[in-house]
Amino acid sequence: MPASTSVKDYIRTIVDFPKEGIMFRDVTTLFADPRGFRMAIDQLLHPYAGVRFDKVVGLEARGFILGGAVAHQLSAGFVPIRKKGKLPGAVISEDYQLEYGEAVVEIHDDAIQPGEKILVVDDLLATGGTAEAGIKLIERLGGEIIGCAFVIDLPDLGGRAKLEALGMDVHALCAYEGE
Amino acid sequence: MPASTSVKDYIRTIVDFPKEGIMFRDVTTLFADPRGFRMAIDQLLHPYAGVRFDKVVGLEARGFILGGAVAHQLSAGFVPIRKKGKLPGAVISEDYQLEYGEAVVEIHDDAIQPGEKILVVDDLLATGGTAEAGIKLIERLGGEIIGCAFVIDLPDLGGRAKLEALGMDVHALCAYEGE
Repeated sequence: MPASTSVKDYIRTIVDFPKEGIMFRDVTTLFADPRGFRMAIDQLLHPYAGVRFDKVVGLEARGFILGGAVAHQLSAGFVPIRKKGKLPGAVISEDYQLEYGEAVVEIHDDAIQPGEKILVVDDLLATGGTAEAGIKLIERLGGEIIGCAFVIDLPDLGGRAKLEALGMDVHALCAYEGE
Repeated sequence: MPASTSVKDYIRTIVDFPKEGIMFRDVTTLFADPRGFRMAIDQLLHPYAGVRFDKVVGLEARGFILGGAVAHQLSAGFVPIRKKGKLPGAVISEDYQLEYGEAVVEIHDDAIQPGEKILVVDDLLATGGTAEAGIKLIERLGGEIIGCAFVIDLPDLGGRAKLEALGMDVHALCAYEGE
C-alpha cells in the first residue's frame, strides 16, 4: 500500500459483522500497519498539543490498544474502563442501554483523583452509550475531561451529539455517514 | 509514593479475586502511574535494544494496553489475539485447556506475513496456556517470534518452562514465587 495521510485508507469494511446488515469498520488493519498506527496516534493527539494530561482512559477493548499508545506518548498514566466483573479492586459502575437489554461498565474507585486532567480514547463513536457511561464514571471520581478522541465517528448514530450535549470536546479522525 | 525502579512497588495484590484463595496481582495501579507505566514499557523493551520488530502481538485484554504502547515505542504495527468471535475478518483459531473446560483464541489470517519479526506482549505469565496458543497462531502464519515479554511471571505455575520448551525467549519484569 502506498503511504497515505488518511486513516480511512487503512480501515477495512467487513460486511454483515457482527450480524447481517452491519458494515463493520475494522481498525485492526490500521493498527497492524506501522505507518497507519503511528498516524492514528499522532492525529488523535493533534488537537491537544501542549496540554498536560494526568491520565488517559481507554474503553475496553480496542480503546486499550489506542489508549496504551496515547498514554505512553503523553507520559501519562493509563486507566481502563471495563465490562462488569473484570476489574479486581473496588469499583464504581454505570449501566447503559444497548439495542436489546443493557450493559454495565466499571472503573476502579481510586483510579482517578479529583482534578486530574483526563483524555478519553476509543476506536469508534457510534451511539455513544459506552462513552457516556465512561464519562459519568470519570466525573463521579472528580476527573476533569479535557477531550474525547476517537478514530471513527458514525454521526448518523448520534454519539457525537450526545457527548457534545454533555459538554464534551469530541475529536474524531474520520467519519462514515449515510451508509 | 516515592519514585521506584521496581515495577513490583506499583503492583497491588487483591486477595480472593476472582475466587477464594487466589492472590490476584493487579497491574492497573502500575499502568495508572505515569512513572510506573513508562518504567514498565522501558523494561519490557530493554532486552531488545537495536532489534527491529515488524509487529507487536498483544493478548486480550491487558496485553492490548501494554502492546499498544510497546508497538508505538518501536514504530511497529500492533496485532491483537482475541477470544473467539471478536475479530471481524477471516481468522485462524487455537483452543487450549483451562482449569475447567477450554477456551479458544483467534488471529486474523492476514495479520502477519511470513518472516515478519514479532514481539509477544502480555501482563502475566501463569500456566502459559493462552501464550502457547498465541505462539502457535503466530507461527502458523509464518511469523518469527523474537521474544515473549511479560510484566509478571508466576514460575510455580509452569508457564515459563512451557514457553522455553517451545524455544521461546521469555522476558519478565518480576516474579512472584511460592505464594
